[in-house]
Amino acid sequence: MARVIIWGGTGLTGGELLRLLAGQEAMELVAVTSRRRAGQPLWTVHPHLRPDYPDLLFTAPDEAEGVAADLAFLALPHGSSFPVARRCLDRGLKVVDLSADFRLRDRSLRESWYGPGGAPQELVERAVYGLAELHRRELGQADLASGVGCNATALNLALFPLARAGLLETVRAECRVGSSEGGATPSEGGHHPFRSRALRIIEPFRHRHMAETLQELDLDASRLTMTVTAVEMVRGIQMAAHIGLSKRVVEADLWKLYRQAFKGEFFLHLTPARPAHLRFPDPRLVLGSNRALVGFALADDGRRLLVVSAIDNLVKGAAGSALQAANIMMGLDERQGLDLRPAYPA
Amino acid sequence: MARVIIWGGTGLTGGELLRLLAGQEAMELVAVTSRRRAGQPLWTVHPHLRPDYPDLLFTAPDEAEGVAADLAFLALPHGSSFPVARRCLDRGLKVVDLSADFRLRDRSLRESWYGPGGAPQELVERAVYGLAELHRRELGQADLASGVGCNATALNLALFPLARAGLLETVRAECRVGSSEGGATPSEGGHHPFRSRALRIIEPFRHRHMAETLQELDLDASRLTMTVTAVEMVRGIQMAAHIGLSKRVVEADLWKLYRQAFKGEFFLHLTPARPAHLRFPDPRLVLGSNRALVGFALADDGRRLLVVSAIDNLVKGAAGSALQAANIMMGLDERQGLDLRPAYPA
Amino acid sequence: MARVIIWGGTGLTGGELLRLLAGQEAMELVAVTSRRRAGQPLWTVHPHLRPDYPDLLFTAPDEAEGVAADLAFLALPHGSSFPVARRCLDRGLKVVDLSADFRLRDRSLRESWYGPGGAPQELVERAVYGLAELHRRELGQADLASGVGCNATALNLALFPLARAGLLETVRAECRVGSSEGGATPSEGGHHPFRSRALRIIEPFRHRHMAETLQELDLDASRLTMTVTAVEMVRGIQMAAHIGLSKRVVEADLWKLYRQAFKGEFFLHLTPARPAHLRFPDPRLVLGSNRALVGFALADDGRRLLVVSAIDNLVKGAAGSALQAANIMMGLDERQGLDLRPAYPA
Amino acid sequence: MARVIIWGGTGLTGGELLRLLAGQEAMELVAVTSRRRAGQPLWTVHPHLRPDYPDLLFTAPDEAEGVAADLAFLALPHGSSFPVARRCLDRGLKVVDLSADFRLRDRSLRESWYGPGGAPQELVERAVYGLAELHRRELGQADLASGVGCNATALNLALFPLARAGLLETVRAECRVGSSEGGATPSEGGHHPFRSRALRIIEPFRHRHMAETLQELDLDASRLTMTVTAVEMVRGIQMAAHIGLSKRVVEADLWKLYRQAFKGEFFLHLTPARPAHLRFPDPRLVLGSNRALVGFALADDGRRLLVVSAIDNLVKGAAGSALQAANIMMGLDERQGLDLRPAYPA
Repeated sequence: MARVIIWGGTGLTGGELLRLLAGQEAMELVAVTSRRRAGQPLWTVHPHLRPDYPDLLFTAPDEAEGVAADLAFLALPHGSSFPVARRCLDRGLKVVDLSADFRLRDRSLRESWYGPGGAPQELVERAVYGLAELHRRELGQADLASGVGCNATALNLALFPLARAGLLETVRAECRVGSSEGGATPSEGGHHPFRSRALRIIEPFRHRHMAETLQELDLDASRLTMTVTAVEMVRGIQMAAHIGLSKRVVEADLWKLYRQAFKGEFFLHLTPARPAHLRFPDPRLVLGSNRALVGFALADDGRRLLVVSAIDNLVKGAAGSALQAANIMMGLDERQGLDLRPAYPA
Repeated sequence: MARVIIWGGTGLTGGELLRLLAGQEAMELVAVTSRRRAGQPLWTVHPHLRPDYPDLLFTAPDEAEGVAADLAFLALPHGSSFPVARRCLDRGLKVVDLSADFRLRDRSLRESWYGPGGAPQELVERAVYGLAELHRRELGQADLASGVGCNATALNLALFPLARAGLLETVRAECRVGSSEGGATPSEGGHHPFRSRALRIIEPFRHRHMAETLQELDLDASRLTMTVTAVEMVRGIQMAAHIGLSKRVVEADLWKLYRQAFKGEFFLHLTPARPAHLRFPDPRLVLGSNRALVGFALADDGRRLLVVSAIDNLVKGAAGSALQAANIMMGLDERQGLDLRPAYPA
Repeated sequence: MARVIIWGGTGLTGGELLRLLAGQEAMELVAVTSRRRAGQPLWTVHPHLRPDYPDLLFTAPDEAEGVAADLAFLALPHGSSFPVARRCLDRGLKVVDLSADFRLRDRSLRESWYGPGGAPQELVERAVYGLAELHRRELGQADLASGVGCNATALNLALFPLARAGLLETVRAECRVGSSEGGATPSEGGHHPFRSRALRIIEPFRHRHMAETLQELDLDASRLTMTVTAVEMVRGIQMAAHIGLSKRVVEADLWKLYRQAFKGEFFLHLTPARPAHLRFPDPRLVLGSNRALVGFALADDGRRLLVVSAIDNLVKGAAGSALQAANIMMGLDERQGLDLRPAYPA
Repeated sequence: MARVIIWGGTGLTGGELLRLLAGQEAMELVAVTSRRRAGQPLWTVHPHLRPDYPDLLFTAPDEAEGVAADLAFLALPHGSSFPVARRCLDRGLKVVDLSADFRLRDRSLRESWYGPGGAPQELVERAVYGLAELHRRELGQADLASGVGCNATALNLALFPLARAGLLETVRAECRVGSSEGGATPSEGGHHPFRSRALRIIEPFRHRHMAETLQELDLDASRLTMTVTAVEMVRGIQMAAHIGLSKRVVEADLWKLYRQAFKGEFFLHLTPARPAHLRFPDPRLVLGSNRALVGFALADDGRRLLVVSAIDNLVKGAAGSALQAANIMMGLDERQGLDLRPAYPA
């Protein structure tokens, strides 16, 4: 039984990790920290988990340093995570960090999006990018894994087969995102009267999650445009990528390419070509689960392709991928605690 | 042309007043104040009104004191309104105050709900409660009108015919309210991920808007219970009152009673007994308008009655009633600027 | 491994059963019937379950009669279920029927709500009402269990401790329900432009699910009023019961009463008295799970009580209770396949 | 006072016309037809308009033929409109047809999208495309105007300045649409449990409204791609067009181009470049009104442009444009009945 500590357990990704861990029987939660909520019951922040953790209190960070554990999840803000990671590693814990501190290996890329003064380069290089579908083998050897950007994950899982086949000439990705992407802290933009049914185009051409896609798909920045639009939902990402292919293809080749790439992947699923209304995935079909759905359609010219993916940003785009990575790092079946099905319609 | 000034124009009721005034051709907006936003264009806060007020800037309160006007609407927080009202009255303006400062004539009642230190009693007594349907004649003579509580208005318009007929023995009122009732300031409870699709019972037995109903319907406190539930909508109130009647009645009498009471009222409308799905009003049928809909059903025993009303909390429950009162105070047709129809479905 | 057949697998409760069974490892789905969809993949109707049942086709009813099985769930319309139940029982299967055919033991009560010509009385009397929390022992001996009405379940779980203590003098129950309660078949009332954000009071005083509450709580019809309001959600019921108690009580007694009644119940949970915003349960805290939450507040007079419950109508109010009953009937742990946690916020 | 008849008054555009006409004081409604609802009160279908039309009944089409009128709006299904138009014209009425029957002048284009057997070519050629901003002068001479496609209007109003300047090399337009676009008739796709919070990509590359854009902007089909995604709203279209410009431009030129093109247009408004969150229009800022908002951002390369527009599909995208065209055809101020402001937030 792996003893687990969560650093920073009051946010939405922290809450989601707690939900997943309640169903992961090979892991035992020994502490969850909060500076502001120390001493208060966990369920005051996560009321839906009261039956699962009826008596657990938040632990102050200082106290948590002394708690014996095997594995730490860090659900801390960007920039405050890496010192905790260092101390956990020094004490022999394996670490999965959900912040952006360790996601980008290239220092200049990292600093251009997240500013200077982040994690030291040698620590960054020790980290494996925490997306099991792309780094399963390295995660098996790692003691430090980064988290994944939710929007980046929607792109990376949808496009890696094309990237590996050298087919991506241009990518114009449009992410439709829910309000949970903005986190648990109230803000003007997230205030219900203004956020409800909003269609708010946040970024017209670029978004910082792009950097993870450039890195993971080994793409040149000039090939990728990314737009993010906030829509009326709480969880979920639908990513629609309009792709210019580097060569003309026929649809059968794409099916073959995707089927091979997804083969054996428990959490990746293609949507069917027919009936038409199921061709492009809707996030509601994965909410609450660690699944990613991918569908596509090729234009008549054989050069323009629409690829659409759907994930739950808090699961496959955050806590779920983190647990999957942790399972691998701990030598467990990567599916443990993640065999979840969406409740639909909901 | 009446010159109008709005004190406190950044909130939701201030915004709604601005929308209504843009269509009230007998009034001319000369200033709208904001301490925090002074000098900024009005449309930075109310982007939907940019075509109506392309160039208007918020005025600092100090400057606004010097602006010549005939009428002031005060959309300020409870407790900060009455000093401004006093100064406006002293300068000869007519005043409609949308806060709660002047709503409750009884000092002890007022202080029990809103705390001590409010408006001086003589000023309170100078004010007329600003619901035209109940105080049309007095408003014609008044230079100071209070605003109305939105939930109270949903009750008062639904129940005044029964109250006047002495039929109300017990009233258990349930208000379903939207997120705009909480105002424009971000809060944890109003944060979209937590507020979206919430069913949050805010008050099990009482709510401070009750006091206005007790006063206006001349009811004893022991007869009234009020529950407020936040539901998934931005605007709108649906009030459902389960009433124990003081004597057995037949339905035809109730129709007669309500028809007489609503006769000649431009904004009050009964919903039909049939078809069944239209019997009880839905707030969507009044959104954006100053209308109030009222429907009812009598139980077989002739003693239990369900009365349901629907209003837009920002219009009939706030800015619309305020403009209607102001129209009367200024000697105008009370409907001016208020001849609005809901866009449905929306 | 129990072999399971589902009769009528295209509706929302059928779909929910399929979701739950995919995670119930002691049961094996051998067939799911549909007259209209026979031969088509199950996922054309339930696209979220494509990864769980990639190859399963709907079976025509006639063929299904010949499939060997140990247990049948009937998710058929009211009135068409009992003949299938009879044939299944004759072939030695245990049967859980989700329709209303076997819920009401009293023939006249049953016919008054569902019309004449239903299940024969001896078959009805053979059935156990399928709510494990109230009939666990009988279910252990039964070969036929009824389903439960979703609204009735919200009432029954909230009120049975009070009913057993003889405290219920009057009950005015208000259920707020989602659109999934209306089923999967398109209708004018369920058409999105008209149903979205609706506040539609469906029944002012009574609803046919009342009958199950009268039966299960052994209440006199004159004591119970029930209102149903459709609100903006897909899943979930929030039931708020305003209760007149038969005697004055103190709050501590109620806590004791409820704690004892819920003791050992895996799926029943009380909400805390504090903080205030968590006192009354919100359906979002149980969606997708088999949990029921119950909270209450006592008025100062010690005689008026508000009890609020929240369930997922498709799980605890239908498929979840059915699986729980089936587990008991098959000698399994009643929690199998039901250890589910809500994804919140969502 | 122009006497107006509406043919086909039970749908969503018919209802919207009725709402607008209730506020257009220079027009008098003399009849509204419905085959199925003849003899029933108008408010049974449009309950929000009961105060406006308390006594009006639907008229059977046969009877309506004999009603004297000056102007007819046809809100009939595609393909059934043109024979009615012919008869109305023959009787000397002016006609505004909201169907697609007269929108496309080119017969082969028309038949390729709507099938053979539509309106005779000479009648089509008699019609003016009913978008006042593009055809004001011709409408002043016309006795027959077509309606406009809602998605086409979102594109046409956003792009006509660029088209006229010869700047459009490629256009990839993405329309986010609400459920009202599907009309008032229940359907599986529009059933609330399935439609609520859906993100449903309806068309990956083309949509029949494209044809109107090709015609009105005089674009070659190869330059335009159009995707339509159903999102969680009832009314509203947000159109986001990713444009490849035919030459490098600087942003100031675009501002100048758009300001000139929109000059004097009462219903067209540019959104400001700053603050960033207001740069791209959100449909909520126009709902219920006849306004169209347009915003844009130019990429650093001066060649890629994002143009975003927002309209209410039932107003500017249908009934509002129709009334605006009718006003012009009748020699009235085109703004009459259309001076409407959105209620926001709502």
